[in-house]
Amino acid sequence: MAEPLFDRIALIGIGLIGSSLARVIRRERLARRIAIATRSPETLERARALGLGDAYSLDAAEAVQDADLVIVSVPVGASGSVAEQIAGTLKPGAILTDAGSTKGSVIRAMAPFVPEGVHFIPGHPIAGTEHSGPDAGFAELFEQRWCILTPLPDTDPQALARLTNFWERCGSKVDIMDAEHHDMVLAIVSHLPHIIAYNIVGTADDLETVTKSEVIKYSASGFRDFTRLAASDPTMWRDVCLHNREAILEMLARFSEDLSALRRAIRWGDGEALFALFARTRDIRRSIIEAGQEVDAPDFGRHVVAHHPQTPQPEEG
Amino acid sequence: MAEPLFDRIALIGIGLIGSSLARVIRRERLARRIAIATRSPETLERARALGLGDAYSLDAAEAVQDADLVIVSVPVGASGSVAEQIAGTLKPGAILTDAGSTKGSVIRAMAPFVPEGVHFIPGHPIAGTEHSGPDAGFAELFEQRWCILTPLPDTDPQALARLTNFWERCGSKVDIMDAEHHDMVLAIVSHLPHIIAYNIVGTADDLETVTKSEVIKYSASGFRDFTRLAASDPTMWRDVCLHNREAILEMLARFSEDLSALRRAIRWGDGEALFALFARTRDIRRSIIEAGQEVDAPDFGRHVVAHHPQTPQPEEG
Repeated sequence: MAEPLFDRIALIGIGLIGSSLARVIRRERLARRIAIATRSPETLERARALGLGDAYSLDAAEAVQDADLVIVSVPVGASGSVAEQIAGTLKPGAILTDAGSTKGSVIRAMAPFVPEGVHFIPGHPIAGTEHSGPDAGFAELFEQRWCILTPLPDTDPQALARLTNFWERCGSKVDIMDAEHHDMVLAIVSHLPHIIAYNIVGTADDLETVTKSEVIKYSASGFRDFTRLAASDPTMWRDVCLHNREAILEMLARFSEDLSALRRAIRWGDGEALFALFARTRDIRRSIIEAGQEVDAPDFGRHVVAHHPQTPQPEEG
Repeated sequence: MAEPLFDRIALIGIGLIGSSLARVIRRERLARRIAIATRSPETLERARALGLGDAYSLDAAEAVQDADLVIVSVPVGASGSVAEQIAGTLKPGAILTDAGSTKGSVIRAMAPFVPEGVHFIPGHPIAGTEHSGPDAGFAELFEQRWCILTPLPDTDPQALARLTNFWERCGSKVDIMDAEHHDMVLAIVSHLPHIIAYNIVGTADDLETVTKSEVIKYSASGFRDFTRLAASDPTMWRDVCLHNREAILEMLARFSEDLSALRRAIRWGDGEALFALFARTRDIRRSIIEAGQEVDAPDFGRHVVAHHPQTPQPEEG
């Protein structure tokens, strides 16, 4: 059996990400001991009942003592206070990382508290579901998903290699980029989609001419695809909006500009412009499926039936 | 064995909807004969190769001769010309219906051509996938889905009952409403989601700061959920935009207004407003799942693993 990568790993926050990490660390024997900390007594009890770790604490400072790897998986708004709490008990030589959806703000919040001799390497596993909490996690969450690391200019290459190896053993593929670029990429691939999904579900909820029960009944015609993202954890997403503001506002401005052009094409009956936009977006989905980032089941596999592969026939859709 | 509901059914258009109808009509023995017409020779050959019907024609007028039920499943922009073509050969007493996504415009386009003695009852099965063409159809498409019928004021109740029975035998639940209300409901549950999905995929495609390959790589973080709708048939959706213009522009205006408020909350760091919106949208998804219109698998069941039901833990998402 392979030697564990780390003697002791501390998980600060034991929601979807933290509890999935606990499960894969155990399954792959990536550490001899797992220490778990969360500020919520109920969550901690649930983690204990699920047997996710070897030690449990409401005090993050206690949990990180003697840990070789500390992974902070809390809403990004809480990153700074966690760093402040654990600063005094972090072990020299330890690796400190996080799983936050924004990276520039996490670095600004955490870095000032990181003591000399601790390797702070911010990270972001691009994985998740719409569910939250320690019950929602599962060991396979990171399989075939990307994990982005955003090391600082003075990051120790050996520590970076060790953390990269850790994520690969969790099943992930690892990419390295700077924090600013990460925040721009995530603003378009993740933050904007969530914000738009929340917005459209809110718009539908407010209508007077169409009842909520009608929206629910007929949601299979498109609307329900948005409700998955709009069911995501509200605290996490509030924090993302507050902590990646500039990049999100930039993407929202572009989206709104494009939407105005589309509205204008609809108002003036410009069928050519509409067809041109609607035709070019098909390719992107095909590429996503080819890249292994999506399942190729029609309707997300909601209809569990055997049928033939697609033959595009635009004339008769 | 039950008596077939109709002696002869004609299917005009044999794409996703038409070919799914052909399959379920055959499986449930809802007709003695199925006549198929499409204006595309390639599509007609494909339908023949798949054995979807008993008679095949490029001429809709020929296909509807002697048919007791005629179902027009073409992009809504083609409804009027189909009605004009078949007007002379429709059998007295036949039921003529359609499967178009807009109803007001279909009535305006088709009704003037419908001869006295033919029962014209517009309809819309709320079912579909992102795939198109005769290969994409399957007999189970309509199961547990709603089909909306929008009869005209003078519709014969017996003909309406017969068509209702037909859709129920296809596995659908049938609702009756007027065309104007249908168009408003569908604008929010289907047309707006598709337009927004096309728009965001277009916005992402145009960025200079984030490459297309990055969008594809990291799409699992939210973006890919939109690409399913944005992979839908462009001709169909162009026609929907052109034919339900007023209702769509009304919904787009509301959506944009709400989005402006959300942008403002992000710009000014109004965490309370963001949390309030993000928290209230969760309920709608729960209701959709309870109504049987969505599967309760996290991440649309893309992760095929056993795990526990959700325990919401907003503090640690």
